Amino acid sequence: MKQRNVVFCLFLIFFINVLSAQKSVLKRPNIIVFLVDDMGWQDCAVPFWVKKTSQNNRFHTPAMEQLAADGMKFTNAYANPVCTPSRVSMLTGVSAAVHHVVNWTSPFKNNNTDNLDDQMVSANWNMNGLSNVPNIPFTYQATTFPSILKAAGYFTVHVGKAHWGSSGTPGSNPYNLGFVVNISGQAAGHPQSYLGEENYGNIPMKPTIQAVTDLQEYYGSTTFLTDALTKEALKSLDAPIEQGQPFFLHLSHYAVHTPIQADIRFRNRYLDMGLDTIEANYASLIEGMDKSLGDVMHYLKKKQVDENTIIIFLSDNGGLSLGGKGARGNNSHVQNLPLKAGKGSVYEGGIRIPFIVKWPGVCKKASATDAPIIVDDLFPTILAMAGIKKYSTLQTLNGKNIIPLIQQPSIFKERTLIWHYPIKWIDKDGPGINFHSAIRKGDWKMVYNMRNGKTALYHLKEDIGELNDLSAGYPQRLKELKTSMSDSLRKWKSPMPVFKATNKLVPMPDEL
Amino acid sequence: MKQRNVVFCLFLIFFINVLSAQKSVLKRPNIIVFLVDDMGWQDCAVPFWVKKTSQNNRFHTPAMEQLAADGMKFTNAYANPVCTPSRVSMLTGVSAAVHHVVNWTSPFKNNNTDNLDDQMVSANWNMNGLSNVPNIPFTYQATTFPSILKAAGYFTVHVGKAHWGSSGTPGSNPYNLGFVVNISGQAAGHPQSYLGEENYGNIPMKPTIQAVTDLQEYYGSTTFLTDALTKEALKSLDAPIEQGQPFFLHLSHYAVHTPIQADIRFRNRYLDMGLDTIEANYASLIEGMDKSLGDVMHYLKKKQVDENTIIIFLSDNGGLSLGGKGARGNNSHVQNLPLKAGKGSVYEGGIRIPFIVKWPGVCKKASATDAPIIVDDLFPTILAMAGIKKYSTLQTLNGKNIIPLIQQPSIFKERTLIWHYPIKWIDKDGPGINFHSAIRKGDWKMVYNMRNGKTALYHLKEDIGELNDLSAGYPQRLKELKTSMSDSLRKWKSPMPVFKATNKLVPMPDEL
Repeated sequence: MKQRNVVFCLFLIFFINVLSAQKSVLKRPNIIVFLVDDMGWQDCAVPFWVKKTSQNNRFHTPAMEQLAADGMKFTNAYANPVCTPSRVSMLTGVSAAVHHVVNWTSPFKNNNTDNLDDQMVSANWNMNGLSNVPNIPFTYQATTFPSILKAAGYFTVHVGKAHWGSSGTPGSNPYNLGFVVNISGQAAGHPQSYLGEENYGNIPMKPTIQAVTDLQEYYGSTTFLTDALTKEALKSLDAPIEQGQPFFLHLSHYAVHTPIQADIRFRNRYLDMGLDTIEANYASLIEGMDKSLGDVMHYLKKKQVDENTIIIFLSDNGGLSLGGKGARGNNSHVQNLPLKAGKGSVYEGGIRIPFIVKWPGVCKKASATDAPIIVDDLFPTILAMAGIKKYSTLQTLNGKNIIPLIQQPSIFKERTLIWHYPIKWIDKDGPGINFHSAIRKGDWKMVYNMRNGKTALYHLKEDIGELNDLSAGYPQRLKELKTSMSDSLRKWKSPMPVFKATNKLVPMPDEL
Repeated sequence: MKQRNVVFCLFLIFFINVLSAQKSVLKRPNIIVFLVDDMGWQDCAVPFWVKKTSQNNRFHTPAMEQLAADGMKFTNAYANPVCTPSRVSMLTGVSAAVHHVVNWTSPFKNNNTDNLDDQMVSANWNMNGLSNVPNIPFTYQATTFPSILKAAGYFTVHVGKAHWGSSGTPGSNPYNLGFVVNISGQAAGHPQSYLGEENYGNIPMKPTIQAVTDLQEYYGSTTFLTDALTKEALKSLDAPIEQGQPFFLHLSHYAVHTPIQADIRFRNRYLDMGLDTIEANYASLIEGMDKSLGDVMHYLKKKQVDENTIIIFLSDNGGLSLGGKGARGNNSHVQNLPLKAGKGSVYEGGIRIPFIVKWPGVCKKASATDAPIIVDDLFPTILAMAGIKKYSTLQTLNGKNIIPLIQQPSIFKERTLIWHYPIKWIDKDGPGINFHSAIRKGDWKMVYNMRNGKTALYHLKEDIGELNDLSAGYPQRLKELKTSMSDSLRKWKSPMPVFKATNKLVPMPDEL
């Protein structure tokens, strides 16, 4: 009888192990990346600077405040100056200087979106974006983290703006990039219209390349795009939650990209404040986005999965700071103060983004860190959150797992980050805009203007507005950053522009 | 010690039960509905009549032949005269005379697609289609079988033509109808273009309401729509197969609906046969669809799930039999011979469809039945196939589980089926087209022409072409069918047209 007991015990242990393995699978956290388009660092009530600004006081974003109160703020978080580079970096864990998708991709294949220039030929870049398969011209082939999550059993959902690649290439299709469900994700970089009344741009005989797909249910209604995408996103989560399958949701809002149309649910507050129409519209886009975040949080609570769901909130580049028709106000480059410039620039206004992580039981409530992080970090971080330790990728990651920061916010302080934007984004140069690169190490940052061959050195902690060039006083520090940037760009074969007059490549900063 | 043994035993039994319950869940069959649009009963190499016709000899459809060799042919299978009624009947298990979506739905809300008539006002029907929620004007609210499959743990995928409801209503969105994944399903009833070179109709500044969504990857390529949909469908199955989750795939081709564009992969064969361009194009659409079926079967085998996957092949109505510009040939109503008329008609040419079921281990290979079945039957049949016995629906089903037929092909012989198409489909009346109803009981069929108040009686077994009106010889049979049709239409509150001259409803046949 004794022997039999041992056999029973062994069986029992075996079965308990099998079951608990299955149970632990069920316990893997759900992960939501809540990505906002073109949202500036100051465009919310949550202060990411050392003090509240007038911008923080302008915006009504209670859900973001709740998220910050529940989680951790990253006050030195970065993206790239424009969207596609950031989106590709996020999905691949690789710097734009490495993947060479340095500008936004056109909805059309082989269509270079760079502006022409009298003086320079733009760098040769991967103008068709990201690809999951080889031999697609002008694309960067890589393994995406959603494909790893999917293979590990996650229900992976993309909703909203994709903009990873041009039509006619695999990267335009989120189903090729690791998503089980795709709603409204395509090659376009902005919506034709935010309005249900305008069918989100799907009007026969009107231009439709930017028309938003998959939302016919809301045509002719007053449902604002931000709300329609939120509704569809939450609908898609019902099945995995019921199945006990962990999910990854990439809720990627078209808001707050141009066209700056009013989300009339929220605009009156801002008109009453005395804002002009365009700024009131912009603020209403922000608040509509915040309402979406609140709806997501409410849904998670209602479904009783909020305690097992991580939310990562971020923007894909700095806030638009161009004034004039179709843009914001009469003045340019002031919308992100105290940061310099905005979208398209390698100055802080173009690359510094709001970033919050809520991870119940792990992130301390209302905590913050000023350690520098970047969108490339999401790849290893999210896989670590999902408990996936072993995986292989075609590419070598630049991103780092930021989870250790949660326990020890001081690490990463001396980390080096590089931005590389060697093309002409807009017709008229602006501060840090068109043919620029930048490097940050610790609190020091160097900006390189390729057109005039000038570099400038700033100390971000002392001078967040990048107003005082300290090159003269810190020649050694400057040299170190020049060398570091040059070494990296050479190693990564980062594309450089060519001077038309000489037909020579722009020199690396250490060759100046 | 003895007591402990008992405890161990009980634990063991409990755990084994838990595990085997999970295993049995994994063993549920996958189910594919392979739906073709507007394919006629004779438009393939597989004969559904008692002998092969010249049409059967025309078409090269090896995959369909393989499917028929592997499974069971239903030679008396029916749909409705046009697409949306059939699609709603399939998803709800309810007759069109009951759900009142008697015509095809417009891509636009509240847009009646009926043709105007001098003599009659079309019946009042649910012109916005199907809905999953109440209080949507002009819709039929019902529980769909994919939503029951989804709740039971199936991974439910819709790919291709949806056409269950108009934009601006929930029925335009397959995510509301029980699908976990939707690719290219929308309110439109046909594609703007089958050609990748034409972006499937997504050309800025051209009409786009029928442009096919979600296929940007193939823009500018030579990928024919049928092939692009197949590729996307199979891609979507990778995840559930890897997860061991049973799937339901509704692969709903736009082919072979107009525009009758050439699938150039296959056209030469038919030009070489001497067919004119339009008929060669049509045949190439058929063969492209067959290639898709072959690709699906190949994929299932490669993934080693073919033995556990049921395939149900069918069309949504009879073949188009209108001649002239944009249609088929110079003559009308001859394309489905020996059947009378075609799409839009309540004669057999409009409603009889190819129908094959492959169910490995259950359906006898190369078997057939002539028992009458109809698309409404898919609802209870598919749920029975999935082993789902208990479910509740808002609606009372008209459809029957056809699985018993597989064992006992003779049952259902005396079944009554009713078709109700009380509106004006096309401008010019044709045989059985515009303001008609029909009833079949056993081998007898009565056709009711509402415009002239005439009925006709046919014996389908003797006269599949519905050429000989036997009313005079079988008054009792005629009376019985008139009563049966009238009782049903009254019970179902089926909408009837109104005579403009008298402002009176068209009488029921028993009131003539």
